[in-house]
Amino acid sequence: MEPTTLNVDDYVTRRGLMMVLSSPSGAGKTTLARRLLEKNSNMQLSVSHTTRSARPYEVEGRDYYFCTVEAFESLKEQGEFFETAKVFGNFYGTSKSPVKRALETGQDVLFDIDWQGTQQLAQHMGERVVSIFILPPSMIELQNRLHKRSSDSEDTIATRMSEAASEISHWAEYDYVIVNYSLDESLDNIEAILRAERLKRSRQIGLANFINALVEQKSS
Amino acid sequence: MEPTTLNVDDYVTRRGLMMVLSSPSGAGKTTLARRLLEKNSNMQLSVSHTTRSARPYEVEGRDYYFCTVEAFESLKEQGEFFETAKVFGNFYGTSKSPVKRALETGQDVLFDIDWQGTQQLAQHMGERVVSIFILPPSMIELQNRLHKRSSDSEDTIATRMSEAASEISHWAEYDYVIVNYSLDESLDNIEAILRAERLKRSRQIGLANFINALVEQKSS
Repeated sequence: MEPTTLNVDDYVTRRGLMMVLSSPSGAGKTTLARRLLEKNSNMQLSVSHTTRSARPYEVEGRDYYFCTVEAFESLKEQGEFFETAKVFGNFYGTSKSPVKRALETGQDVLFDIDWQGTQQLAQHMGERVVSIFILPPSMIELQNRLHKRSSDSEDTIATRMSEAASEISHWAEYDYVIVNYSLDESLDNIEAILRAERLKRSRQIGLANFINALVEQKSS
Repeated sequence: MEPTTLNVDDYVTRRGLMMVLSSPSGAGKTTLARRLLEKNSNMQLSVSHTTRSARPYEVEGRDYYFCTVEAFESLKEQGEFFETAKVFGNFYGTSKSPVKRALETGQDVLFDIDWQGTQQLAQHMGERVVSIFILPPSMIELQNRLHKRSSDSEDTIATRMSEAASEISHWAEYDYVIVNYSLDESLDNIEAILRAERLKRSRQIGLANFINALVEQKSS
């Protein structure tokens, strides 16, 4: 950098974004979230609490915080959740403290939540939230993908297909919509959204100070 | 594509974006605009009318439509301009017809205009407009760049430096702000904004039809 050049990072405080990915089960959201996190060291996943039982491959604290209904309700009474939802008879919730800690240190936080959670999160956090809805390119393909998941029974698949239509009905509440034809292309799209959102004037807190210093420089 | 896959392009009508780049003279905007247009065949530059005389390297119809004050005022009376501005004693204006033709055929249009033009354009076209303000990383560097332009006299440079501070004072009226440390990085940033803006739900006209077809598919 030239010696006369001002560094915008000395003036602008980096505040993390809250990026929400929602989609019906099987539309590729979980794979996209994993790959996005692998490529962006400045982003972390918000780990939800849940009262459902762990699937064989799931790890406590990485995939979910697994807890009893009683523990969940106690945390909820303490106002510790941004949002809670009941899906397929189980409770899910996003606790506030780890998210706020991450945002304050300039980390972006990724949320893998449904439309109910997104509505509640947006109500709490307003413009901090950037919401993306992932659509499958085909419902028949979606059903095939659910069949390939050995962990889901036929009954669960039928329920998920009807829930998928219900989840999709909320697409118009999201800021961005991506049809997931290819994981690579969808990942590029999500990263472009992330990059663009960081460049929004309204997110660059402290930019006025940088500009004051810049204009002052002229008269010196 | 799988045979069951629906093509979103069959449902969503591509409507062009109006992307505005503003900055003080010498901040790199013209180079960025040229490179952006070279890389994006789906984007074209809005060519302004002006009453100032052509610089030696400027080409009629590519850089500007050069016209007399009388011709300019006649077009203005006919309501043929989105916006007009008087800068350094000369008139500038963006005529509507070529822009509207481009947008209707799905082309994006790039505008290299100042804060006055941006305000007027946004008033006419609202959310169709995506505005980006390019800042120099240093005012001293900006002055150096103006000195290297042989076409500008010392007097013009002094006037431009004072106009630069005035132009910069309008940064807060733009959607995005980019500090131009490197042309390559700034170009990547502008392209990310373009890509993200195209993915906004509100810009994907006809997405509801795609989603209806998608959900119908399930029950067939």
